[in-house]
Amino acid sequence: MDVLTIRLTHGGSPLYEQIYRHIREEIRKGAIQGGEKLPSKRRLAAHLGVSLNTVDNAYAQLVDEGYLEPRAKSGYYVCRIERARFAAAAGPAETEPAPRPQFAYDFSPSGVDLKSFPYSLWRRLYRDVLAGGAQTGCLAAGDPCGEYELRQQIARYLHASRGVRCTPAQVVVGAGGDFLLQLLSQLLGGGRRFAMEDPVYNKAYKILEGMGNTVVPTPLDAHGLSLVSLQESGADTAYITPSHQFPLGIIMPISRRMQLYEWACEREGRYIVEDDYDSEFRYRGRPIPALQGVDGAGRVIYLGTFSQSVAPSMRIGYLVLPPDLLHRMTEDFGFYSCTVSRVEQRVLAGFLQDGHFERHLNRMRKLYGRRREAFTDALHRLLPGVRVSGDRSGLYLLLRVPGKRTEPELDALAQKKGVKLYPLSGYYFGGVKAQGDAAFLAGYANHSEEEIVQGVRLLAQAWSE
Amino acid sequence: MDVLTIRLTHGGSPLYEQIYRHIREEIRKGAIQGGEKLPSKRRLAAHLGVSLNTVDNAYAQLVDEGYLEPRAKSGYYVCRIERARFAAAAGPAETEPAPRPQFAYDFSPSGVDLKSFPYSLWRRLYRDVLAGGAQTGCLAAGDPCGEYELRQQIARYLHASRGVRCTPAQVVVGAGGDFLLQLLSQLLGGGRRFAMEDPVYNKAYKILEGMGNTVVPTPLDAHGLSLVSLQESGADTAYITPSHQFPLGIIMPISRRMQLYEWACEREGRYIVEDDYDSEFRYRGRPIPALQGVDGAGRVIYLGTFSQSVAPSMRIGYLVLPPDLLHRMTEDFGFYSCTVSRVEQRVLAGFLQDGHFERHLNRMRKLYGRRREAFTDALHRLLPGVRVSGDRSGLYLLLRVPGKRTEPELDALAQKKGVKLYPLSGYYFGGVKAQGDAAFLAGYANHSEEEIVQGVRLLAQAWSE
Repeated sequence: MDVLTIRLTHGGSPLYEQIYRHIREEIRKGAIQGGEKLPSKRRLAAHLGVSLNTVDNAYAQLVDEGYLEPRAKSGYYVCRIERARFAAAAGPAETEPAPRPQFAYDFSPSGVDLKSFPYSLWRRLYRDVLAGGAQTGCLAAGDPCGEYELRQQIARYLHASRGVRCTPAQVVVGAGGDFLLQLLSQLLGGGRRFAMEDPVYNKAYKILEGMGNTVVPTPLDAHGLSLVSLQESGADTAYITPSHQFPLGIIMPISRRMQLYEWACEREGRYIVEDDYDSEFRYRGRPIPALQGVDGAGRVIYLGTFSQSVAPSMRIGYLVLPPDLLHRMTEDFGFYSCTVSRVEQRVLAGFLQDGHFERHLNRMRKLYGRRREAFTDALHRLLPGVRVSGDRSGLYLLLRVPGKRTEPELDALAQKKGVKLYPLSGYYFGGVKAQGDAAFLAGYANHSEEEIVQGVRLLAQAWSE
Repeated sequence: MDVLTIRLTHGGSPLYEQIYRHIREEIRKGAIQGGEKLPSKRRLAAHLGVSLNTVDNAYAQLVDEGYLEPRAKSGYYVCRIERARFAAAAGPAETEPAPRPQFAYDFSPSGVDLKSFPYSLWRRLYRDVLAGGAQTGCLAAGDPCGEYELRQQIARYLHASRGVRCTPAQVVVGAGGDFLLQLLSQLLGGGRRFAMEDPVYNKAYKILEGMGNTVVPTPLDAHGLSLVSLQESGADTAYITPSHQFPLGIIMPISRRMQLYEWACEREGRYIVEDDYDSEFRYRGRPIPALQGVDGAGRVIYLGTFSQSVAPSMRIGYLVLPPDLLHRMTEDFGFYSCTVSRVEQRVLAGFLQDGHFERHLNRMRKLYGRRREAFTDALHRLLPGVRVSGDRSGLYLLLRVPGKRTEPELDALAQKKGVKLYPLSGYYFGGVKAQGDAAFLAGYANHSEEEIVQGVRLLAQAWSE
């Protein structure tokens, strides 16, 4: 019996563990067969020169895992185990992730400036939240819809700055826009028919389709999603970005909003999802009020995040639910845990509460405004043929480039100079290719004014060759 | 024309905003009709005694929102708007959430001790992560699967303590177990047939069913999920908690694990979901190695979280994916943003990296071990008729109470004394009611030894009356 030939190493792992491992491997290899009887604990202890307790611990572990079976007044027997699958499958090799291509001037439309983030304030808020220790309950399981104090702050902010009318109870906090769209799809019962602006933020399209909905690409006119194409789509839910259509930058006029809203009110079970993704950044006048603010019938679902206004890696967003969906959330989905850490929720609540958020937004609005100006100025000066639009709000411009060269050609020329723009065609999902001129999205939030001008200079060189 | 009768208040909101609001309300009320022409900016400015610029700003905002339309060389005209829905729907009343019932002795099976959490260490780790500022990239959008450094730490920890064999790339980080089950369901393509232990952690059942899967309640024998009932279920996926079955506390022997694994290998597309929810807490010998560790064929999906080992409100869990599902994740779901904040991921990585986590676990294991002993001792002494099981690992006991009284009766008696236990019947979802004696789950992690003894004393009083 091989059990007796264990070679023990003193000073390494505990002796009981060495004995346990040895016997386990012998059983796995089939060197000790199912049904075989093991030496008594006393005999093995004597043979190995270890204490009875050591062997006892090893045998107990093997019993717990089901390798050995103790039989009363008889001893320890090896269990019968399907061994065929104990392949010594070597762990797969550890590979570092492949680095993504880097560009010196990456004008990503989702870029934000992170150098101006109030790091030390954030640390202080975090320290304050944790300082209370266990009494504050910040580490215990929380409300599935999020911390009440954060939802209060969000409701107040949305009312003051976006004209949204809701109670804190209607605000549901979740780990970013992607997750919230999944949650919303579940709340709506799945299998819905969404009319979605085409072109659009294409993740939303993939997520809703991935959740088992039908998504109908719906063309836009100069005012955004048109009532006619919405009616033709046969949809029961309209997904729109009225404050600043992504990616075309259209601001939907109030008459169009009210038409769409009227459409939603016409039939039971129709909804409008109002994705207000970058409404914080508008450079002239007041922010455009949200459609949710006129919703007395409970047909508008409002979606927002802090990805652009605070930081993309801070996975915190929110839905404002109408009463029927709120009921569904608490009745049918109250068992879900909230997807955001309570500590981070409270830190954000503190940031909103004491006016920090407003001050931060004002600072960023000024900073982004200067960058936008530097960008449009440089474009007018160095690339006078390029038409610029979508510059009244948000963090990117839409550039239309007349001429014979296609988007891929222009894109390749720009990339060669280290400049990355984002071709508009990439945002169409209905097979309806962008008509007319080549067009690109170009975000400016992530670069200094000097970098922006230098990027445009390189772009002008790239496209003049 | 009512536009001229605006009453301006000096010292309040900006004058242009007052003008804008007044005109907007007049249009909404219908006091100014669609098609009507507004006074020229110059005339209104003179009439109100404000600067031309002020009126210009007000008109511009109304144009941006689509209330007014400028016509070249003519002036500003009111747009035609569907007004029917401009109901002055008063915002719903703000209501505080209803407080949940509180018990002096709440033996929740999901309770954990939060007084021993290393608050100051956590603050320091957080400070260190933020100290690097923008250069560290911790606020920019991250890898959809999570921070590589955290996934490395998780892979190492799982290998050392659970025998899991995986690369960091196979580890996918997400906002807690509930979310990860939703993600997994999407990775598996939906519409699966899950065999699930009955009784079970009932949220898992609801989540998988909510995602469009069929969930077959599968009875257990003394060793957990049996091969026969698994085969009878017609399932293609088995969801099991082999280290410590929830709620019955069964440790699945290796022979049974290998049988189930053999079942998974028999046919293409079969998987085992190994939910290793509380494997950290075992009070005798070494932890039971995970089934994932023998998986050379890529049929085991391993699921774990830090909810019990760190804190429930810290929404961080992980999947270890076999190669085919990992491929699916990166190919088809690479567009999802990771649901956990990068800052929190890096804080946790730091906690794992420097041995803090291991020390914390050792400390908690000792603390919980003492509470478990105090609990079992008190039960033996004060409620000698009650049979206790499931005490080798995890953070709760299973109490079987012989006698004529039903679970609801015993539950009500306990609650009257301020003691909350968790009836076992609540965890059955297949309609198969718990046979035999009334039984309760009773978690002890959240109470001091003194509180535990006092709780048992009250329980003994409650049940002796």
